[in-house]
Amino acid sequence: MRKIIFSLAILLSLFTTANAQKLMGFADSTATQQLSWEKQFDVQLSAANMDTWMKFLTSHPHHVGSPHDKANAEYIAALFKQWGYKTEIVTYYPLFPTPKTRVLELLGSKPYKAKLQEPFLKEDRTSGQRAEQLPTYNAYSADGNVTAELVFVNRGIPADYEELERMGVDVKGKIVIAKYGGSWRGIKPKVAAEHGAIGCIIYSDPEDDGYARGDVYPQGAFRRSDGVQRGSVMDMPVYPGDPLTPGIGATKDAKRLEQKDATTIMKIPVLPISYEDALPLLQSLGGPVAPAGWRGALPITYHAGPSKEKVHLQLSFSWDLKPLYNVIATLPGSQFPDEWVIRGNHHDGWVNGAADPISGLVAEMEEARAIGELVKKGYRNKRTLVYCAWDGEEPALLGSTEWVEDHASELQQKAVAYINSDGNSRGFINAGGSHALEPFFNEVVRDVIDPQTGVAINERLYARTITETPEANRAKIIGNKNVKLSALGSGSDYTPFLQHLGISSLNLGFGGEGSGGEYHSVYDSYDLFSRFKDPGFHYGVALSKTAGRVTLRLANAEVLPVDFNSFYKTVADYAADIKTLADNMRSQTEIQNRLIKEKLYDLARDQTKTYRAPEVKEAVPFLNFSELDNTLAQLKTSVEEFQRLYISATRLPVEKQQQLNTILYQSERSLLHEKGLPRRSWYRHQVYAPGYYTGYGVKTLPGIREGVEERNWQEARESIETATRTLQLYNKQVNAAIALLK
Amino acid sequence: MRKIIFSLAILLSLFTTANAQKLMGFADSTATQQLSWEKQFDVQLSAANMDTWMKFLTSHPHHVGSPHDKANAEYIAALFKQWGYKTEIVTYYPLFPTPKTRVLELLGSKPYKAKLQEPFLKEDRTSGQRAEQLPTYNAYSADGNVTAELVFVNRGIPADYEELERMGVDVKGKIVIAKYGGSWRGIKPKVAAEHGAIGCIIYSDPEDDGYARGDVYPQGAFRRSDGVQRGSVMDMPVYPGDPLTPGIGATKDAKRLEQKDATTIMKIPVLPISYEDALPLLQSLGGPVAPAGWRGALPITYHAGPSKEKVHLQLSFSWDLKPLYNVIATLPGSQFPDEWVIRGNHHDGWVNGAADPISGLVAEMEEARAIGELVKKGYRNKRTLVYCAWDGEEPALLGSTEWVEDHASELQQKAVAYINSDGNSRGFINAGGSHALEPFFNEVVRDVIDPQTGVAINERLYARTITETPEANRAKIIGNKNVKLSALGSGSDYTPFLQHLGISSLNLGFGGEGSGGEYHSVYDSYDLFSRFKDPGFHYGVALSKTAGRVTLRLANAEVLPVDFNSFYKTVADYAADIKTLADNMRSQTEIQNRLIKEKLYDLARDQTKTYRAPEVKEAVPFLNFSELDNTLAQLKTSVEEFQRLYISATRLPVEKQQQLNTILYQSERSLLHEKGLPRRSWYRHQVYAPGYYTGYGVKTLPGIREGVEERNWQEARESIETATRTLQLYNKQVNAAIALLK
Repeated sequence: MRKIIFSLAILLSLFTTANAQKLMGFADSTATQQLSWEKQFDVQLSAANMDTWMKFLTSHPHHVGSPHDKANAEYIAALFKQWGYKTEIVTYYPLFPTPKTRVLELLGSKPYKAKLQEPFLKEDRTSGQRAEQLPTYNAYSADGNVTAELVFVNRGIPADYEELERMGVDVKGKIVIAKYGGSWRGIKPKVAAEHGAIGCIIYSDPEDDGYARGDVYPQGAFRRSDGVQRGSVMDMPVYPGDPLTPGIGATKDAKRLEQKDATTIMKIPVLPISYEDALPLLQSLGGPVAPAGWRGALPITYHAGPSKEKVHLQLSFSWDLKPLYNVIATLPGSQFPDEWVIRGNHHDGWVNGAADPISGLVAEMEEARAIGELVKKGYRNKRTLVYCAWDGEEPALLGSTEWVEDHASELQQKAVAYINSDGNSRGFINAGGSHALEPFFNEVVRDVIDPQTGVAINERLYARTITETPEANRAKIIGNKNVKLSALGSGSDYTPFLQHLGISSLNLGFGGEGSGGEYHSVYDSYDLFSRFKDPGFHYGVALSKTAGRVTLRLANAEVLPVDFNSFYKTVADYAADIKTLADNMRSQTEIQNRLIKEKLYDLARDQTKTYRAPEVKEAVPFLNFSELDNTLAQLKTSVEEFQRLYISATRLPVEKQQQLNTILYQSERSLLHEKGLPRRSWYRHQVYAPGYYTGYGVKTLPGIREGVEERNWQEARESIETATRTLQLYNKQVNAAIALLK
Repeated sequence: MRKIIFSLAILLSLFTTANAQKLMGFADSTATQQLSWEKQFDVQLSAANMDTWMKFLTSHPHHVGSPHDKANAEYIAALFKQWGYKTEIVTYYPLFPTPKTRVLELLGSKPYKAKLQEPFLKEDRTSGQRAEQLPTYNAYSADGNVTAELVFVNRGIPADYEELERMGVDVKGKIVIAKYGGSWRGIKPKVAAEHGAIGCIIYSDPEDDGYARGDVYPQGAFRRSDGVQRGSVMDMPVYPGDPLTPGIGATKDAKRLEQKDATTIMKIPVLPISYEDALPLLQSLGGPVAPAGWRGALPITYHAGPSKEKVHLQLSFSWDLKPLYNVIATLPGSQFPDEWVIRGNHHDGWVNGAADPISGLVAEMEEARAIGELVKKGYRNKRTLVYCAWDGEEPALLGSTEWVEDHASELQQKAVAYINSDGNSRGFINAGGSHALEPFFNEVVRDVIDPQTGVAINERLYARTITETPEANRAKIIGNKNVKLSALGSGSDYTPFLQHLGISSLNLGFGGEGSGGEYHSVYDSYDLFSRFKDPGFHYGVALSKTAGRVTLRLANAEVLPVDFNSFYKTVADYAADIKTLADNMRSQTEIQNRLIKEKLYDLARDQTKTYRAPEVKEAVPFLNFSELDNTLAQLKTSVEEFQRLYISATRLPVEKQQQLNTILYQSERSLLHEKGLPRRSWYRHQVYAPGYYTGYGVKTLPGIREGVEERNWQEARESIETATRTLQLYNKQVNAAIALLK
């Protein structure tokens, strides 16, 4: 019996291959037409345009509230109009603090006053626009004036505080200094405050993006000793967007919270500094030598602290509402005007913002312009295209979040998908998103040629992946040229679409060969970008080709290119991961508790130093995954049936196709749960979320995973139930799709 | 049937446990006596003596040829005589070069002349004895005067040159600069010369033993910016000892090679420097940024080179024969005077040499003194004790090698075992050696109490091992408190005993809590040692207790405590390792060659940089391990039978015991093969050797393993045969022992 089934399976797969559509969701004839338009699209794309636009858009600092931020929005809007788009500038008024006072000094016998300033370089023409620049600061830091001893907390994540506790170093009432990296920056002051610290300094260690990585600017692209990473420290894992208007658009007359009630504003003062400014502070630290893994690349012995001398940190901010200018440009669909394919990239920067975000924006603009040219030649998109240039992404995804919250019900009805980009540079395709879109995306990448090597971008990515994989681990990936979508956490404008509204999303960009240390500094400039990140905008063009194809195919497919099986397999892997995680935690906790009880930590430690044994932890219970497993098993059956039927979907009558499409693009909505994730109801997606303690870093099946990781068993149990419910609803959608296809 | 066999096995093991001797090789009554003498031995041990002797022995530089080297030998000899030992100073005359000229400078527009000097520190009283100190240099460097561009070669091992080749950086005709570490220092110039370099500079990167590890001296114990690691670069993996008298003692009238024919003298000039001196050289490097794994902790971007400016290196040496003073102190055996238990530690240092080697030497001396005290109380050792204090270990294991070569035939007859120590500091027991001694050694460690925690030293080692093991890997080692002997490579005086003559050896010491950067610098002083490495000599006493017990039990056991099964299991693991290695190499080479042929390396690399694909490698053949496997299978049967019989060996008549003992201690000799290892006939042991390309680092089953690793299949095939022959001879010894026991 077994053998026969096996042979049948082979036959089936042959059958599938023979009947494969040229393009997912297209009939053969329309596929041919589509591919022909795509060729013409490619021909339109001009690197020179990107260069021109980037020069203008980065010519002055263009942060929220700056004159050039508004000028850019108007410039972008004018171009979209010129290309035939129905264009508007949509304005919101979120809270956006800017610095009034910034003082950081080391007191005592060898006092040091931090410079908090990035100097002008003659090699970087815009770096000297001091009057227009936002100073170096962390947005949504608290006001504060504190003087205390300093403690070094490594990356400032919860595990680092466990280590400090073992070393006998207390941060209560202290100011902490943390390295950038290892988590999103906003996690650092949040965790510091949870542990009783009264101030937080974050610095860029040269290990991470300075001289240890490569030559510093302007010789190379890496961070100089005086370079500073600005950035937001709002508690975005709770909710992004305007802190005063959670869940609703920050329109002029929106009902606002009082500032004191906004839970996402950081509780303690936070300031980012350069490693030049960090060095005297780190040198002042006494106490134990920091663990090996905490060391950076400064030429000192890193100590945990506390410091021998006190540190004074004084910050105050203007807490103003500032206008946001989102550019929204629409090209109505000829056949399904109420199905929207949305494409977005933000336009605001921390300073001149060339790589972040203009490199992605100009690729999106060129894509839109090329489509405008196609329209002149008779091309019509079946679905509506909505091209967006967001403002205020840097402070807190402000522009996208407020717009999404403001248009929530319309978007829930109409949004087919959201395609995001942000920074872009030379290198390899980097893609994350909804896994039902993965096979579709892999059709796209096979048609985009890498500008440096002349092979398809997935071929080049495969080449790098396998050659950089340790030899011992290559056998299991050899020949696999599929681009696996990463799961989306946060850090760019897809978050409100995907995680608040359940709109299938993709986030696309190239990178890996344009590394530098310009991130959020005055040196993220046209001059740096055009020397180091994507000279000639060849990868700008490649991004236009990639995101353009995704957008156009989604806009024109008869049947939306959704693969439920790809989603199922990915989620089943996540569930298996978490079960393994819990099992490993169980056996490891058991051993660890035994070692602690046998006093082995006390025997092992250096007896001349304080190094406490870890705390005994509660035993890990067995969690009931059975309902989730049963649901996944049902889903497996459904998705496999769906995929078998899907290949003939383009032969359905048009009305049925439209009914089917509505199910297909709304299926991701069923992954939302109205009560949201534990401790953060704004995040409703049950499969993808930024981590509560990682910030940008994704947590998949987040309620369950974080429940297990944080040993919050009740939360884990409830989240298993919630996730199971949403997957059951998802399965209903799949079955509804099957019913239509039969 | 199966079940019955299983139950029998349990019965047998119960029987074994019930009849276990108190001490391996001792009858119950003699064991009681032995344990009682050991208690009295412990009581004798005085940390104060160690302190006194270290003060004297480190009061002046005591390298080969220095006045204090001779004074120390006389001081040690006088003490041994005083304690009742028959003592002589045995003198040899090896070649020992000392510097005449040392110049290192960076030429060009920003010239720099290296200081090559370690300054006096008021906190370190002996650091200013400049007139008596050996300057910073590498012994057995070639004379030379070279000027060339500089290239950074990371650790300077073969894999680093493959990486340089891929980056398109050639070292031919260049001077290379390498970091200390990652291999024994002599490997660096050897490999550099093999690749055509004309000079070699070795520096101490602060990553390895400087500020990155801890506070620098005198605040902490780590290497200062101006600290330099002296050391030998003789090609000791070919043969150690006097380069002019390989295989024979360097007596006054020995037949000597001409210097030009001595293959172990380095072919190019080599100089060690501090990181202060290295910094300008490294800053002068151009060319590609060094790979991430090559970076050290200096505050620069490390480049591979070549340098923009040239470097001038000029070295010349006085190539003189210098006298060596080995102290040999004997306490004849009361019962088996022709069975020698040999205990040794060197006395020469590179400068004041407190940790290396006096910390180990004073523990050995105190051990000898305590035995002298026992003798006064009526104690008699059955076998002869030979206490040695070697001279000239630092340049090339000169003292021990010349003495061993000079006394080869007597030692082959009489040597029961050699127990070595060298540096010692606070921390954990660290033991390597012949695996037939492992169960015996584990009986010893259970009787030695850790001075800081009050538990047995194996308990404390277990506590550290398991608590430092990642949680995921603990399950397989939990509860295993056996101290696994490491295999011995080289780096101390056991090498001639074990690897040239096949004398079972152990190398013992404590460490892990006395880390610092004083190694081979002027700061390896009494002042540093007594502050940081073993204040109060508590671990000096622990070493006396450990090595003393080993020595005394070997001297007094009725039947030598040999466990052939432990040897067998270890060698079987080594053989399995190598087979896995070859299998993995085979499948990995196949994949790697495929990736190269599919041009994936060319696609993956940054197209703006040179980074060549690796070379296609010859396919890995299947090697015939069958004869080795069959021999191991036979050995397994024999050793198991032997161990069953061994437990009643103490009941044999004395004459039979003596016959058995001769077999037991000579069994290790059968692991020698007269033709030695490929390319280095001096190394005759077929199980343990220092690596041809690692230096100190051990290679087990070295002929086979290095044949496979270096893809020299013919050498691997021949070595499988040779190793098989020696294991067959070993098996014969086991069978001879069985015959006596039956």
